[in-house]
Amino acid sequence: MAREDGRRPDQLRPVTITRGWLAHAEGSVLVEFGRTRVLCAASVQDGVPRWRRGSGLGWITAEYAMLPRATNTRGDRESVRGKIGGRTHEISRLIGRSLRACVDYKALGENSIVLDCDVLQADGGTRTAAITGAYVALADAVAWMRERKMCPGDPLVNSVAAVSVGVVGSSTLLDLCYSEDVAAETDMNVVMTGSGEFVEVQGTAEGVPFDRAALDSLLDLAAGGCAELTARQREALA
Amino acid sequence: MAREDGRRPDQLRPVTITRGWLAHAEGSVLVEFGRTRVLCAASVQDGVPRWRRGSGLGWITAEYAMLPRATNTRGDRESVRGKIGGRTHEISRLIGRSLRACVDYKALGENSIVLDCDVLQADGGTRTAAITGAYVALADAVAWMRERKMCPGDPLVNSVAAVSVGVVGSSTLLDLCYSEDVAAETDMNVVMTGSGEFVEVQGTAEGVPFDRAALDSLLDLAAGGCAELTARQREALA
Amino acid sequence: MAREDGRRPDQLRPVTITRGWLAHAEGSVLVEFGRTRVLCAASVQDGVPRWRRGSGLGWITAEYAMLPRATNTRGDRESVRGKIGGRTHEISRLIGRSLRACVDYKALGENSIVLDCDVLQADGGTRTAAITGAYVALADAVAWMRERKMCPGDPLVNSVAAVSVGVVGSSTLLDLCYSEDVAAETDMNVVMTGSGEFVEVQGTAEGVPFDRAALDSLLDLAAGGCAELTARQREALA
Amino acid sequence: MAREDGRRPDQLRPVTITRGWLAHAEGSVLVEFGRTRVLCAASVQDGVPRWRRGSGLGWITAEYAMLPRATNTRGDRESVRGKIGGRTHEISRLIGRSLRACVDYKALGENSIVLDCDVLQADGGTRTAAITGAYVALADAVAWMRERKMCPGDPLVNSVAAVSVGVVGSSTLLDLCYSEDVAAETDMNVVMTGSGEFVEVQGTAEGVPFDRAALDSLLDLAAGGCAELTARQREALA
Amino acid sequence: MAREDGRRPDQLRPVTITRGWLAHAEGSVLVEFGRTRVLCAASVQDGVPRWRRGSGLGWITAEYAMLPRATNTRGDRESVRGKIGGRTHEISRLIGRSLRACVDYKALGENSIVLDCDVLQADGGTRTAAITGAYVALADAVAWMRERKMCPGDPLVNSVAAVSVGVVGSSTLLDLCYSEDVAAETDMNVVMTGSGEFVEVQGTAEGVPFDRAALDSLLDLAAGGCAELTARQREALA
Amino acid sequence: MAREDGRRPDQLRPVTITRGWLAHAEGSVLVEFGRTRVLCAASVQDGVPRWRRGSGLGWITAEYAMLPRATNTRGDRESVRGKIGGRTHEISRLIGRSLRACVDYKALGENSIVLDCDVLQADGGTRTAAITGAYVALADAVAWMRERKMCPGDPLVNSVAAVSVGVVGSSTLLDLCYSEDVAAETDMNVVMTGSGEFVEVQGTAEGVPFDRAALDSLLDLAAGGCAELTARQREALA
Repeated sequence: MAREDGRRPDQLRPVTITRGWLAHAEGSVLVEFGRTRVLCAASVQDGVPRWRRGSGLGWITAEYAMLPRATNTRGDRESVRGKIGGRTHEISRLIGRSLRACVDYKALGENSIVLDCDVLQADGGTRTAAITGAYVALADAVAWMRERKMCPGDPLVNSVAAVSVGVVGSSTLLDLCYSEDVAAETDMNVVMTGSGEFVEVQGTAEGVPFDRAALDSLLDLAAGGCAELTARQREALA
Repeated sequence: MAREDGRRPDQLRPVTITRGWLAHAEGSVLVEFGRTRVLCAASVQDGVPRWRRGSGLGWITAEYAMLPRATNTRGDRESVRGKIGGRTHEISRLIGRSLRACVDYKALGENSIVLDCDVLQADGGTRTAAITGAYVALADAVAWMRERKMCPGDPLVNSVAAVSVGVVGSSTLLDLCYSEDVAAETDMNVVMTGSGEFVEVQGTAEGVPFDRAALDSLLDLAAGGCAELTARQREALA
Repeated sequence: MAREDGRRPDQLRPVTITRGWLAHAEGSVLVEFGRTRVLCAASVQDGVPRWRRGSGLGWITAEYAMLPRATNTRGDRESVRGKIGGRTHEISRLIGRSLRACVDYKALGENSIVLDCDVLQADGGTRTAAITGAYVALADAVAWMRERKMCPGDPLVNSVAAVSVGVVGSSTLLDLCYSEDVAAETDMNVVMTGSGEFVEVQGTAEGVPFDRAALDSLLDLAAGGCAELTARQREALA
Repeated sequence: MAREDGRRPDQLRPVTITRGWLAHAEGSVLVEFGRTRVLCAASVQDGVPRWRRGSGLGWITAEYAMLPRATNTRGDRESVRGKIGGRTHEISRLIGRSLRACVDYKALGENSIVLDCDVLQADGGTRTAAITGAYVALADAVAWMRERKMCPGDPLVNSVAAVSVGVVGSSTLLDLCYSEDVAAETDMNVVMTGSGEFVEVQGTAEGVPFDRAALDSLLDLAAGGCAELTARQREALA
Repeated sequence: MAREDGRRPDQLRPVTITRGWLAHAEGSVLVEFGRTRVLCAASVQDGVPRWRRGSGLGWITAEYAMLPRATNTRGDRESVRGKIGGRTHEISRLIGRSLRACVDYKALGENSIVLDCDVLQADGGTRTAAITGAYVALADAVAWMRERKMCPGDPLVNSVAAVSVGVVGSSTLLDLCYSEDVAAETDMNVVMTGSGEFVEVQGTAEGVPFDRAALDSLLDLAAGGCAELTARQREALA
Repeated sequence: MAREDGRRPDQLRPVTITRGWLAHAEGSVLVEFGRTRVLCAASVQDGVPRWRRGSGLGWITAEYAMLPRATNTRGDRESVRGKIGGRTHEISRLIGRSLRACVDYKALGENSIVLDCDVLQADGGTRTAAITGAYVALADAVAWMRERKMCPGDPLVNSVAAVSVGVVGSSTLLDLCYSEDVAAETDMNVVMTGSGEFVEVQGTAEGVPFDRAALDSLLDLAAGGCAELTARQREALA
């Protein structure tokens, strides 16, 4: 089965990582996975949340959101509805956990970095694009701090990147766009370190449950995709 | 390394499934995984949400919550804070997705079943206990509907059960209690059907990222645990 | 007129008080008035609310809530609606005031006890069962504190119990179940101390207003019911 | 013990009932109990809440609120805090129940009347002044409807008035002002019909619990006060 | 075209400023512009908001609100809806800015004054009446503070008053009542100091956009109206 | 006094209008006034709000928001705080009113257009950039509708553009950047049609009140700026 944009099953969409997109943020990236476009801003803040004060350890947190017209049909603003939906919460938490996996809190010192990932345009894979872009914004923010000698050590012990994989019909596909995502029987988001280990594996049978063999091929495909994204992050930061 | 309650690494905690715990609900179960105690109520409701009306298809949804003193330290009520936290949202969504995997919406007809999973006492694994118990409550609610000839067919096409697994120190453990969960490097929740396929795999590196071999042994362990829980569900429903 | 469960007009439903129902709480009770089932947890907390700091006095507060499927028809969760309803507020305040009537704040020292009363199953009289059970949970929590020498004196200067009474048709009934409560012309909740004094009297004409004679017989009936509940509390604590 | 404003124990404060205080409302009253000043507006609305549609019956509801500077110290606005406090809810519900006691829903037809009771200045007894004033506003709104032949019959089957009583030191006092209310051991709000029956009795031991004799004298005192307020309402409406 | 109340185009409605309307507030005014009736309370508070602490400067803030039945049709309470509408926010901010224009923060010292403007009855021009009345309440609160020697200097460096003007049909009118406001092509609110300078000019084309000549005549008319209101404020304070 | 970016007092910042920035929206523009960067999306929706149904008239509404790191210091998300601030409300209302001034509702038919203006980067003048850009997005959305023959006529009867002007020190400046805005004594936002009439004039004395002569020169300067922005809009749409 041919993919609608002509990609091979194991091929990423065109990936663009534009650093320094915002004038004010300590680190910022406009990341694009095909038509998916996420603006990632890393904000350095003095101090840490109350429950962590006096520990000598830093903190990383993330907030994910989508502009109302990022999608094909306009969505209501969560600020207008007065509450954040479950999906938004879940993705914010995922991004935060993923980025924390590459940070040494002690080396960061009692500083916080907030990663804002705002989806300007959505076409599938917004959370994986957000994680991949947020890492680069984080790296820039950390560099900014180190220039100012704000950290006791080097807080970045690894890199992280993320990609989606899924089973659509009888094909196992890498980096699903929206129409593929909707059609997928199984959908999996995988976050990996630059050294090839897993940080997060989230697989869901949207339709028919999947067996171990399917799970194994999805993981293989994701590992390849994350390795390629890691290479793009390195190029962008070079 | 011995487990604090003397279990083998691949041993579940004592599991109790008490059906019919509530007088009013169409299906209800008090499920216990060791000291974790979750009250699962299945409520049958005429009709489906607006976006599904006229489709001829049913709907299953779930809400998870924790009593303030389910935990060692009293937590604030979400109703008092005026908003639901990200963790609650995330688990409610997971339970709903998991139970939907064993249901044929067409056979259910335009009816809804709400699964309320309220944690009365928490000692790790509340979401997996909730899914395992909710399935039994759902089966009772479906039986109640079928007695009343409310469904066009048999909506239950499979069963689902869930268990947590994790890496604590150098051990790979099944069904973590709270103290093990806190100490885990990697924590994974696995939801499987009664026929041994995956519905949901959620693995997170809380500390050090994990490699493929660790992931594989976690999945093996989880498959065994889910099979055993499926047997307990069958006994309870017999 | 016979009562639907065959009780005499001045007869309580079967009352069960199960102490230590929760592993984590300093005091906990599952109280049952017939099919009404309320889980009462007493949580000891260091310190008092800001407005009371430095006074040397303790504080007691209560929160009442109902699980969605405690009732015959599933109710929406207040956490999901994002606000607490008037009835919940009113009952929480009543429970707090009632329990404060048996406490010597000075002897409690600058400590707080939160009484969570969660209705697991409702069949009328949930607030009176909650008060009656919460007193026993409170007594256990106070004992727990005194073992640890946390209180300057004995904070429990009395006991409290509560019961509902009402006029249904031409009968004056004790401890109304739900169907009686719905049919009542007049409904009264009475909270009394173990020594037979009134803490709270709340009488409402749901239908026809009532005269002084009716009020007097309701108060007589309630006094008898509270005395009996006081005896049950003593047995449970013995 | 002399009262601070020189009243006898069984004496009301000066009561003023000014009808037609608002240009737009169908009925409106500025009621004053001494320095307590409540603006009561009765708004006639076509139709009834959804749960009552098609019943042929009307509905009465009430909302109570306090201006921020009604009190000695400025209070936060509930609209700014984003939620209504328990006390506000409780009093709104009390006012609604009280006024419903004098209405024949069938004679009202499928119409609603909303009673807004806004405390402009508070000096104790705001809820009893609100009920007493709201009755007069309601009577004017009903008259307005009957002129327009909107009601199938006469919806007003009785009148209601309310007063507070309390035990302060060794005295039993009628119509407590704020400083007396704060000092009261026992505080009771009593709502009665114009024909001398009870609609609502709410007695609370703020300090020492009270015995039956105390309760009896409070009820006697309240009955006298309500009779006098009923007379003032009749004069105002004459 | 004749105005419905017979006024000349450049004539204010009858203006009444009643000082000391509230017993508790440090300054309070009931201001009436025809049937528009706004209760303005000035509350003196120790200290300033956190972001201003230690600056030696005071602060003035305002909150505007409308009673539900101030208008011809009852409006929902913002406290019940759980959020403040855009119009309320906007007017509160306008009142605050306007009053701050006549205050010397240094002479006020680290004290705050909150201006609560509650519309009891609305007939157009509620925000301009609120500003005009709030100034007088503020002057009384400042006098109260100066008597108690709470201010390092004289914080009132000027006075402010406000009026609405508009184009209705071919007429340019001063101080629009509600029916004129609804019919206006252009609507302008102008806030001026007692010495005749502008503090705020807010003109809006509700229908057809307006040219510079129209703008000029509106400003001329407003200047005359504000001068007259300034005179009324002086009389009231004399 | 030289401007920090070397502009003449009556000179706009570099203005860029990029159409079609979003793939999904019916009209979209990235508008830049110097470093201020606002993404404007126009979403066409079938039907109109309830209060307007059956009128045959269309509706235009707008929502303004700012990304957390649009500013120099990260701001809290309004969705996380659970309510929209007064400033956001005020600007959303201003944008909506401004754009409605160029639309013929009858020619639009019963359709709605929502204008989302999200500030990606802020450096003063975000509301005026938003209005200027939103007009172009609106024009594209209207063209999209007319191609599909969704409108009974041509809904665009004019164009609108907006600019800020202010008094900084002794200079009257056009199109203030953030640092100038902070230093301004007087700040004015002016919205004008393409044919040179006023839609909205909002002038505020942040410091010293301003006289008529100052107001006049601000209006002159704004008229010139709006004319230039109108030319840029025309070029962009050509």
